[in-house]
Amino acid sequence: MRASRYLIATVKETPADAVIVSHRLMLRAGMIRKLASGLYTWLPTGLRVLRKVERIVREEMDRAGAQEVFMPCVQPAELWQESGRYDDMGPLMLHLQDRHERDFVFGPTHEEVITDIARNELTSYKQLPVNFYQIQTKFRDEFRPRFGVMRAREFIMKDAYSFHLTADSLQEEYDNMYRTYCRIFDRLGLDYRPVLADSGAMGGAASHEFQVLADSGEDYIAFSDGSDFAANIEMAEAVMPAGERAAPSEELRLVDTPEAKTIAQLVEQFDLPIEKTIKTLVVEAEEGQTESGLVALLVRGDHELNEVKAEKLPQVKVPLTMASEARIRAVIGAGPGSLGPVKLPIPVIIDRAVSLMSDFGAGANEDDKHWFGINWGRDVELPEVADLRSVQAGDPSPDGQGTLQIKKGIEVGHVFQLGRKYAEALGARVLDENGREQAMTMGCYGIGVSRIVAAAIEQNHDDNGIIWPEAMAPFQVGIVPLNAHKSPEVMATAERLYSELTDLGYEVLLDDRDKKTSPGVKFADMELLGIPHRLVVSDRSLQNDQIEYKYRRAADREEWPLADTVARLGNLVSGT
Amino acid sequence: MRASRYLIATVKETPADAVIVSHRLMLRAGMIRKLASGLYTWLPTGLRVLRKVERIVREEMDRAGAQEVFMPCVQPAELWQESGRYDDMGPLMLHLQDRHERDFVFGPTHEEVITDIARNELTSYKQLPVNFYQIQTKFRDEFRPRFGVMRAREFIMKDAYSFHLTADSLQEEYDNMYRTYCRIFDRLGLDYRPVLADSGAMGGAASHEFQVLADSGEDYIAFSDGSDFAANIEMAEAVMPAGERAAPSEELRLVDTPEAKTIAQLVEQFDLPIEKTIKTLVVEAEEGQTESGLVALLVRGDHELNEVKAEKLPQVKVPLTMASEARIRAVIGAGPGSLGPVKLPIPVIIDRAVSLMSDFGAGANEDDKHWFGINWGRDVELPEVADLRSVQAGDPSPDGQGTLQIKKGIEVGHVFQLGRKYAEALGARVLDENGREQAMTMGCYGIGVSRIVAAAIEQNHDDNGIIWPEAMAPFQVGIVPLNAHKSPEVMATAERLYSELTDLGYEVLLDDRDKKTSPGVKFADMELLGIPHRLVVSDRSLQNDQIEYKYRRAADREEWPLADTVARLGNLVSGT
Repeated sequence: MRASRYLIATVKETPADAVIVSHRLMLRAGMIRKLASGLYTWLPTGLRVLRKVERIVREEMDRAGAQEVFMPCVQPAELWQESGRYDDMGPLMLHLQDRHERDFVFGPTHEEVITDIARNELTSYKQLPVNFYQIQTKFRDEFRPRFGVMRAREFIMKDAYSFHLTADSLQEEYDNMYRTYCRIFDRLGLDYRPVLADSGAMGGAASHEFQVLADSGEDYIAFSDGSDFAANIEMAEAVMPAGERAAPSEELRLVDTPEAKTIAQLVEQFDLPIEKTIKTLVVEAEEGQTESGLVALLVRGDHELNEVKAEKLPQVKVPLTMASEARIRAVIGAGPGSLGPVKLPIPVIIDRAVSLMSDFGAGANEDDKHWFGINWGRDVELPEVADLRSVQAGDPSPDGQGTLQIKKGIEVGHVFQLGRKYAEALGARVLDENGREQAMTMGCYGIGVSRIVAAAIEQNHDDNGIIWPEAMAPFQVGIVPLNAHKSPEVMATAERLYSELTDLGYEVLLDDRDKKTSPGVKFADMELLGIPHRLVVSDRSLQNDQIEYKYRRAADREEWPLADTVARLGNLVSGT
Repeated sequence: MRASRYLIATVKETPADAVIVSHRLMLRAGMIRKLASGLYTWLPTGLRVLRKVERIVREEMDRAGAQEVFMPCVQPAELWQESGRYDDMGPLMLHLQDRHERDFVFGPTHEEVITDIARNELTSYKQLPVNFYQIQTKFRDEFRPRFGVMRAREFIMKDAYSFHLTADSLQEEYDNMYRTYCRIFDRLGLDYRPVLADSGAMGGAASHEFQVLADSGEDYIAFSDGSDFAANIEMAEAVMPAGERAAPSEELRLVDTPEAKTIAQLVEQFDLPIEKTIKTLVVEAEEGQTESGLVALLVRGDHELNEVKAEKLPQVKVPLTMASEARIRAVIGAGPGSLGPVKLPIPVIIDRAVSLMSDFGAGANEDDKHWFGINWGRDVELPEVADLRSVQAGDPSPDGQGTLQIKKGIEVGHVFQLGRKYAEALGARVLDENGREQAMTMGCYGIGVSRIVAAAIEQNHDDNGIIWPEAMAPFQVGIVPLNAHKSPEVMATAERLYSELTDLGYEVLLDDRDKKTSPGVKFADMELLGIPHRLVVSDRSLQNDQIEYKYRRAADREEWPLADTVARLGNLVSGT
């Protein structure tokens, strides 16, 4: 591609709403432009990258035996009413009416449509297992779209849906997709982790997320330094600490604590180790589970309650809702800063770590007072124990091997065992070997195709711009002729290299913009665009029959013999 | 691809609403399924064809120097208000509101969005000319969607938009796109005609449609048997007939014609040649153009008024509206079956052919009476003459070479010079060589990607199913092993051929479905799916070291030496 005939839409400034680095760099590199909130146009450079991601996803899905289909964006509301999700989706789903006032939605996902196809096309167990996928535009009407294409409203997704007679068959395809996703993210050149994910809300049996590691990620993932264990933080079990609870060594005593409403204040004012303090969190109970409608969850002062773990307790209302101060006062008689397990008039569930504490301090359920020296069994009966807290770096790995590290990740893929929920709701049944009708069991497998582009940048950039993994680069090679307007030889050499490399199938950007574009701007654009291999043709180098080569990830430039350039590049530029 | 692992969704019956052959065959061959009115899912076989069309379109657009972009489906209403088209589009445009009650549309086309991009990204004449294209999902809320994907509501379109400083530059890119479209339709293997099209409504300077010839087409196109001339029927000029008007030879006479309200009745009852009769059509006039608000348009009895030509007359109201009988009676004093040019109290415009008539008959503007033996000049002054009628087969070609033929066509592409309309409305300006701001001039170039699939079938089918042009076939080669469950050698040979051909890069469908699928069904499916090259492996042939080959377009089968099969196929299967 010649830069003079190509929209190099690089810019210096980015708007204030571009807060993460990938959003800023995609705007600066001229990859995308905002049309409206959460709606982006992909300019030529961005689209080249997007198409490379699409191609790798498609090749690997095909290789895995999945069959590509293409479903409409616009879906009839009836299908969503049939599955029971029409109201569940809330305002995230974009509703629309056609000219005949029939209700439709702009599909945020396609479980309903594919299950409708399956119930019509699949009639016998012999047609199973089968896995249909598509690469397609979805719309989710986020309340506050942000981070550019990372959390856009209109986006490109690869969604796949498999159909099976048995759970074993589903598990087999699930494993196949898991391996396929690993191949896809390996080929893309991303540093990622498949992590155990929560499958509770959708009622499924198993679920993994594929997380690209990046400091800007919104998800926390925990993984072991001694094994393959990796899980979304809410799925990482905080195991029961080793050892027994120490015997009581202090007396229970009531202390005035008028200035201590928080754990930090308690620790500071009374010289209490934080591991000897307790947070008492009062939340609303699931209807009918407790008399007062409240339940107390206790974690150690230095631990954090994990909402997803809490929501799995039968006593706890979903979504997790903290009780209001008025409610707490009415039932317990004290404010939220003075609560504790001793004589608490509502059911209590304590974290595993709390169950091993002794001689600890906690609120007295009376304003401005705490009990110190509390011991389970002696002062208050040991309540129900559960895994309530988020794991922390340094915790033992749940598989018993190594300790946990915590990193941030960007979810770019998700594999999920759906089970029979949709097939049962829509009546998608096949005849089994015995001629009996059975609802099929399903898996679903998503990849955020457009999000991958942003996630790759979050993971691969420096102060000068993007550093593309080779497989995703918009161009593999960039050629900058220096002061070509003064030297016909420079331009002729650049043109010859461009033709030779292009003929060999490389994707090359020749910066043939005229002298009004300074060499500095051309260099900066090549770095910003993140092109892996850069050649500079100059009079100075040509005098020695040389050319300057720079690898985007390297600090230094090299001088190459001009005659060897094509061959040397061939050894470096990897196929995709 | 193995049929046992692939959704061969062939069916025998099609619903009553599938009235054209492509719609029926696409359903029967399992290419598409209807989700709702005008909304179709592309199943694997259909999508394979669609992707081939997309690929050829993309390759040729890239080769032509156009740059691919990808714009959102959902567009802000403000842009359409700015261009002035928000209300013009009527209910064809799908309106929607997001969760914040902001107005959007599902884009039926993208002139507004691309012009918005152009006004932001293009600032200097040096960036011009430039041509941006995308292959993308559009939605047009047709009142009555029909003919399957031929006139669906959601469909795939390639739309391109070029920007220029001068009309010459626009003309150059227009010619480039015209040639590119010819290459695309040539490569697709379609019998098509680029035809002159009407560009009036959009105010543009030039316009061609690309029409695939097919009996089911909804457009009429006229083309010369003696030259390259081809035009949409409303754009084909009906030239002034050769020769002079004959001198009067009959007396003007008033005749009672109580039973003759139509041309056919007049011809039959009075033995009048139809070429001696006139149709007088009274239509509403453009405001202020005539006193009565009406104008009469006259064509010969055997000719048809062409609406598009009539609408180009300044006196005629757009859209063309026939006057009501009440209106005609009030102004003229007679019913529509008794009108004619003699003493007609409203302005008259006559077709060229009418101007050469003599001794002709027409209504007397008095119920149940006609004048016979009318002659221009003697009985009534010659009115304004214009080209009012549609051309007919046998008419002279407007370029003076050969005579016209009329065929039906399906519009699959359109190139159009838009001019400065959008750039002016949205303020898309660049600086010219003299540093002055100028609105850009634009071209737009559309291809109905999904419609091409249907159009190709309309043109290429027989009683057994689809006959794909090689470049569009879902698979190039089909292999049918006969009674493989009885003969391991048959299956082994089929598998070996499948591997060899697949390794060579051919797309092969191996029908390895088990014995429950009869040979007859397998043969029928191969024909229905339209796979160009079919190999049948059977015990009988193998005994002679032979294999059966059949070309989809050929009537007869051939026996090939097994050893030569791969080589012979290689000579026949063309690359795409």
